[in-house]
Amino acid sequence: MPKPEILDPQGKAVLGALDRLGYSAVTNVRQGKRFELEFEGDVTEERLAEVRRAAETLLSNPVIEDFTVRVEQS
Amino acid sequence: MPKPEILDPQGKAVLGALDRLGYSAVTNVRQGKRFELEFEGDVTEERLAEVRRAAETLLSNPVIEDFTVRVEQS
Repeated sequence: MPKPEILDPQGKAVLGALDRLGYSAVTNVRQGKRFELEFEGDVTEERLAEVRRAAETLLSNPVIEDFTVRVEQS
Repeated sequence: MPKPEILDPQGKAVLGALDRLGYSAVTNVRQGKRFELEFEGDVTEERLAEVRRAAETLLSNPVIEDFTVRVEQS
């Protein structure tokens, strides 16, 4: 997601569109990216550390974006 | 997120890059969008239904994308 101090024109456009469509209870919108990474087998601590490293270096731009990593079992 | 039957060239490119960088435990990657909507006050059932409607009609393209809605307290 864009860091809080970074302008997010896409989010602002969505907020404007929601307002015009009558969804006026929403006070703010931010738009970001989402990646789903699949593994065979268990997500070990080591794999999770690798994913965090990949998120930092490849999947996000750490100058303007924050990220969170979440594990979901399928 | 793109539906399972929809090709995802961005996800494929990320998978290739991860592989080249040595993150070879990842077997598949899909890339999608994420929206954070803020509300003043509680997220009632009614608001949640509105968000689902907005996700269906404005935030996603239901022909090629699935979506999930999750509530987070801040």
